[in-house]
Amino acid sequence: MKTDKNLSGNSFAGRTIDWDDSDSSVVMVDQTLLPAEYKIIRCKTISEICEAILNLRIRGAPALGVCGAFGVALSAARSSADTVEGLIKDMTVAGETIKKTRPTAINLSRGVDRVLLISEEEGYDPKQMRSIALLEAKKMAEEDVELNKKIGKNGAKLLKDGDVVLTHCNAGKMACVDWGTALGVIRSAVADGKKITVVACETRPLNQGSRITAWELFNDKIPVHLITDSAAGFFMATGTINKVIVGADRITQSSVFNKIGTYSLSVLAKEHNIPFYVAAPVSTIDAENFDEAVPIEMRSEDEIRYIGKAKELNAPLGVSIKNPAFDLTPMENISALITENGVFYPPILMDEIILG
Amino acid sequence: MKTDKNLSGNSFAGRTIDWDDSDSSVVMVDQTLLPAEYKIIRCKTISEICEAILNLRIRGAPALGVCGAFGVALSAARSSADTVEGLIKDMTVAGETIKKTRPTAINLSRGVDRVLLISEEEGYDPKQMRSIALLEAKKMAEEDVELNKKIGKNGAKLLKDGDVVLTHCNAGKMACVDWGTALGVIRSAVADGKKITVVACETRPLNQGSRITAWELFNDKIPVHLITDSAAGFFMATGTINKVIVGADRITQSSVFNKIGTYSLSVLAKEHNIPFYVAAPVSTIDAENFDEAVPIEMRSEDEIRYIGKAKELNAPLGVSIKNPAFDLTPMENISALITENGVFYPPILMDEIILG
Repeated sequence: MKTDKNLSGNSFAGRTIDWDDSDSSVVMVDQTLLPAEYKIIRCKTISEICEAILNLRIRGAPALGVCGAFGVALSAARSSADTVEGLIKDMTVAGETIKKTRPTAINLSRGVDRVLLISEEEGYDPKQMRSIALLEAKKMAEEDVELNKKIGKNGAKLLKDGDVVLTHCNAGKMACVDWGTALGVIRSAVADGKKITVVACETRPLNQGSRITAWELFNDKIPVHLITDSAAGFFMATGTINKVIVGADRITQSSVFNKIGTYSLSVLAKEHNIPFYVAAPVSTIDAENFDEAVPIEMRSEDEIRYIGKAKELNAPLGVSIKNPAFDLTPMENISALITENGVFYPPILMDEIILG
Repeated sequence: MKTDKNLSGNSFAGRTIDWDDSDSSVVMVDQTLLPAEYKIIRCKTISEICEAILNLRIRGAPALGVCGAFGVALSAARSSADTVEGLIKDMTVAGETIKKTRPTAINLSRGVDRVLLISEEEGYDPKQMRSIALLEAKKMAEEDVELNKKIGKNGAKLLKDGDVVLTHCNAGKMACVDWGTALGVIRSAVADGKKITVVACETRPLNQGSRITAWELFNDKIPVHLITDSAAGFFMATGTINKVIVGADRITQSSVFNKIGTYSLSVLAKEHNIPFYVAAPVSTIDAENFDEAVPIEMRSEDEIRYIGKAKELNAPLGVSIKNPAFDLTPMENISALITENGVFYPPILMDEIILG
């Protein structure tokens, strides 16, 4: 397994995303190559950042937030502008371009806005602005790890020794800078000495569950069984699974937006009286928007029409394919929301969570 | 698209499985090659029959029943036995070998037993036995088409003009000799002049929904949208889907055994007050066995570990994978059972259905 000195981390490999001072680039694990290859890629332009996001080389709400922040810092570092106005313009254009890549996860635009906002504060010259932007992005990356550790600590109390926990997609270290949200809770419980077995859903069509979650846990020696998404109901009905924990891409007052399939799992969990937990940082909460205002990203038909990098035909050419990347799970289906501010039980009220 | 004179049928292509008198072989569409290639393969030995069943070149409960019947007829045709006892022994061994290939669908063993039973009736000499065996298998194939047409006619009454019907796996002509059970109901409704739109679940891990159902319907010009299995809940919640119809591999007094994922869809349909229909011939009913006595086939981990014929890595080598091929849907979750004997509503009682 290749590693990279700029991705300094614990456990089996480094951080998911980082900044390399030596050549002012954003470095990240190319997650499309997992599990066959662990490769670090280097983004030196905004179009490379956007390409990486669009093609899910980097994904996961918290990691996207940090990627957005580093992206704005990158645009500042690479801009030739020598005036405050010119630099703000370049950074703003870059930020808007990055935001458009993936509309559902709110963290991406929040990461962009956070760096833009602090850089634009009055009184900085262009050189200072570049420095401030980068410092803020780095700070956000550090904070992300701390937040995940807090989420893990808070959530670990919900897991008991011997639990078999279903998870969907990847809300692990590869969805964040490190540790993970849903998988962070599991890692924290394991670190507390509890024996936890994970059941990972494959998560079609891009298989983040089989390619990334199963890989993370297998490398960390946490027992994991991989299943197809449609087998979750069977393993709930047969009593194998006794808890579900997932991450989130955006949380409104009434719903959790997360990877397609999350909603189905919440209905199945309810049917079987299995607790259904969501683990996410407070930055994922969008208390202002109604569900109707949140765009559900519809991704390319080709993600389903073809299988694998060899692009084998998985469906007839010309047949219609619908590929929503996310769905909405109503707050009623959620047993508890785990954040860095604590664990919140129904009625789950966003204002309480934000205030901590 | 290649066709074969021995697979004489209507619509876009021939029958799924047939007998070729010219060389005494069982001919069938190799369904593992769909949708990229439509190819007829020829089985001249029992081991070729078993290989085709094990690798799902032929699959679907009704088609497996006919395959089992033709398999026994093939063993009779190929046997060198010149005594009644010798021939019975060869046919019985062949039948037992075929039965073991796939344990969950009851039709396979019933097809085998039907041909064995009639061939063993007293009074035939070996030549007559060979002839009787083949005639019975051919008769079963003809009956299968007739049964499906009856199921289609009975079920079509449940579908309204404008319905959007979700289906899982493939219960189409490729799961039978022709026409189909669940897709047969849809075809019959379309033949009656109703506009029906189908939503087809991909059906991991072997993708019979995307590769076969979408292909069948697309070729028949019946509007179809392909989705991932985990998107079904989203499209139910958003009101896109207003009916579900699936096939069955075995029906006990209390449960429908069908492709993994069927149970999850039944729970989701119940949650959204969407009718959930099962379409299957009476021969799928196993009124004697309790659920516990029905084996759930656990298939190879490699079906999920690797993607496509190129065998790209979809999960880490060494990680545990659980791959049940079927699940159980309790009778309470079924709005109606559609058979050739009519449509049966709750309480759905097997004895009533068998008696018609």
